[in-house]
Amino acid sequence: MTRIQINEIKQFDGLDVTVAGFVHEIRNLKSMQFIVLKDITSSVQITIFKKPEDLELNKIVNELTLQSSVLISGKVHVDSFVKLNGVEIIANKIDVANLSHAPLPIDLSGKIESGRDLRLDWRFLDLRDRKRQLIFKVQTICEMAMREYWIKNGFIEIHSPKLVPNPSESGAELFELEYFGRKAYLAQSPQTYKQMAIAAGFERVFEIGPVFRANKSSTNRHDTEFTSVDCEFAWIDSVDDVMKFEENWIQYFLGRLKETLGDEIKEVFDRDVIVPTTPFPRITMSEAKDIIKSLNYEVPPETKGDLDPTAERLLGKYILDKYQHQFLFVTEFPAAIRPFYHMFSDDNKFTFSFDLLWNGLEVTTGAQREHRYLKMIKQAINKGLIPSDAIDASENVIDDKIPTGLKSYLDCFNYGCPPHGGYGFGLTRMLMNILGYENVREVTYIYRGLDRLYP
Amino acid sequence: MTRIQINEIKQFDGLDVTVAGFVHEIRNLKSMQFIVLKDITSSVQITIFKKPEDLELNKIVNELTLQSSVLISGKVHVDSFVKLNGVEIIANKIDVANLSHAPLPIDLSGKIESGRDLRLDWRFLDLRDRKRQLIFKVQTICEMAMREYWIKNGFIEIHSPKLVPNPSESGAELFELEYFGRKAYLAQSPQTYKQMAIAAGFERVFEIGPVFRANKSSTNRHDTEFTSVDCEFAWIDSVDDVMKFEENWIQYFLGRLKETLGDEIKEVFDRDVIVPTTPFPRITMSEAKDIIKSLNYEVPPETKGDLDPTAERLLGKYILDKYQHQFLFVTEFPAAIRPFYHMFSDDNKFTFSFDLLWNGLEVTTGAQREHRYLKMIKQAINKGLIPSDAIDASENVIDDKIPTGLKSYLDCFNYGCPPHGGYGFGLTRMLMNILGYENVREVTYIYRGLDRLYP
Repeated sequence: MTRIQINEIKQFDGLDVTVAGFVHEIRNLKSMQFIVLKDITSSVQITIFKKPEDLELNKIVNELTLQSSVLISGKVHVDSFVKLNGVEIIANKIDVANLSHAPLPIDLSGKIESGRDLRLDWRFLDLRDRKRQLIFKVQTICEMAMREYWIKNGFIEIHSPKLVPNPSESGAELFELEYFGRKAYLAQSPQTYKQMAIAAGFERVFEIGPVFRANKSSTNRHDTEFTSVDCEFAWIDSVDDVMKFEENWIQYFLGRLKETLGDEIKEVFDRDVIVPTTPFPRITMSEAKDIIKSLNYEVPPETKGDLDPTAERLLGKYILDKYQHQFLFVTEFPAAIRPFYHMFSDDNKFTFSFDLLWNGLEVTTGAQREHRYLKMIKQAINKGLIPSDAIDASENVIDDKIPTGLKSYLDCFNYGCPPHGGYGFGLTRMLMNILGYENVREVTYIYRGLDRLYP
Repeated sequence: MTRIQINEIKQFDGLDVTVAGFVHEIRNLKSMQFIVLKDITSSVQITIFKKPEDLELNKIVNELTLQSSVLISGKVHVDSFVKLNGVEIIANKIDVANLSHAPLPIDLSGKIESGRDLRLDWRFLDLRDRKRQLIFKVQTICEMAMREYWIKNGFIEIHSPKLVPNPSESGAELFELEYFGRKAYLAQSPQTYKQMAIAAGFERVFEIGPVFRANKSSTNRHDTEFTSVDCEFAWIDSVDDVMKFEENWIQYFLGRLKETLGDEIKEVFDRDVIVPTTPFPRITMSEAKDIIKSLNYEVPPETKGDLDPTAERLLGKYILDKYQHQFLFVTEFPAAIRPFYHMFSDDNKFTFSFDLLWNGLEVTTGAQREHRYLKMIKQAINKGLIPSDAIDASENVIDDKIPTGLKSYLDCFNYGCPPHGGYGFGLTRMLMNILGYENVREVTYIYRGLDRLYP
């Protein structure tokens, strides 16, 4: 008999079906036995009578352990008196596919809360929970819809290399490895290679893939490997085009999420998927600072002109109160705290870049990139990445003053690279916002951090 | 004026449009100038008259260099006399967005063939070619369609960790790195973690992501980093379910490719996208050996019972001749050449696994996996990965005899993991088959191999 999924059984009332899943609960009463069977779609009560012709079944249930995987056949009985979804299956056959060891190392009944570290050690058991499984259904639908939007708009998917020959511009938080007698590094972002695709004339590209940061912090938000969502596109007029694209893209994928999983998210997490209106509110960094000041908060000087998480939260709340909007673009970031490849204003004071806050949590950094070779070189000099004598008095670039590590990247801008911009978007922060989690460990399939390289 | 793409211009005959792209060709004649402008969609002739009111334009064209990026406005003129696609644009405005350095390090006119190594050094220029760009459009559509099929069938997308705590079972071809005072390794496949998702009750999962092999060969087919296409699903009855799923999945994505890019592939590569019929032919390994023998070829003994590339090519040709089919499943691989987690036959002789050949090139290894803890332990003992005294006389597993490196993986099977199977599929080999390339370096966006960590 073909197996059906548990969320389909009600349409088979009175008929025989086969379902399969994990034994979530076992109750052995005087005249009957109950199993709660769980699959990826739902749970159902299995009822087994204690009568002579079911002795064989009763014996199987007596020997069952929690979390064993079983195939069960029986008659569907829709009955509003059944507490669990108003339906049960009267079993006539039970096949034990794989008997679980008992006892379980973590509790899955929902009665005892296991510590997070123990849960993460036993992540495959931890993830048998409906709530945690829904996190990854949400991830699947969001990524699907992101890609739908990109492909409708003519984007090409790239897989950029994660083994890279050079440290990034900062050199910090890098994983290094031996590569046949040379040094290689793990990519901290696909930035170089998505811009290379623009220089290659791909015009519009996206990538969803892993990035690596040898991060020594162990907070709620830090990890050493995460999934970065990136896109880059050519022939923009200004950074506004990047923000316009991103807000439409977010509106699209949240709309798709709401229509596919909105009800299930409401049921399991008691949260609404809010599809934002466009345009999103926008304020400049100097307006942001005025607002923060008016709220009697002062950003600590260590941030060097950037916002700290507290300031971001305050801004998020301010915008939510004022415009009933969860999103906020903060624009015109100071050049001092942006990388050299962002497009700088003529006076080198600010950049044509932005952060996007979602409920006061930064989820994106985006920018128009500098695409003109000479200006790129000047901005790299300005940041101290290239010696200042790399440009002579007649504004010629002196090739052999360009550090090897930057050469293949900078070359891209010397051969007609078109104007372009793009953004990176944090997948785990998105999940935290949609589902109300505070810790990146909960929304990462298998978390990696300073203290965790296991399982 | 809003920019349009070059493949749209014919519908604007007689109207003013703006297009943007790279200067692919410049011809300066006595009474006119011509530019061939190329964007990601197509190419078009730009015509500039030499007349007094166009002096400014003529001057710009005189100073233009090949591969500069430009925005051009002008009137569309559909005219069958124009050799290039029967349409031209009579320019009235040219904005040079980024002037290219001249000369170019590699020829892009199609007149001189640059060596592959030089082309890969300048990959961003190499990829401005229409043929090469089409490779990545094909990749985009195939991946889109693969995911469509998976998601329609209830699959969940996972991003498994690439930083892993243990060497794989073989220990060979591993990249190793320092991880905060410990050793970490780069994942050679997502196998462990996609099976962990099955143990977690996700039931059906897929992942498209990078894998790493510290491969010391430098042939046409070897690389150190590539994109692996993987899926795994639970509650199968046998390995047949895995093959059935895969053949339908391939039929689906090749169908989608044909309907979206079939014409362009025919035009640019002069190749048809062939959508295979199902079921694909299937033969057992022992039937395969008989066929090879009948073709007077003998597989060298070093393969230890496996097929070598020559045997695979012969089989591919044999099946094509006999059944007019490009695909072939070879089943019942000997246990000796399969990993311990494939399901072994009761006599430990063969496995419930298969390879899929596409035009005689191996594109998939798939299998039903062993999901029963005790049998997994026995198979690991059989392969010498676990000492034989890890099972006592009463068939109890002695926990502390399990090597640490295998523990978190083997634990997955001790707590009710359901029956399951899956396969891995090679993205670059797919592209080689569809487009007729012989070298993986051509179909990888940025290639990584023994001799190449650049750009």
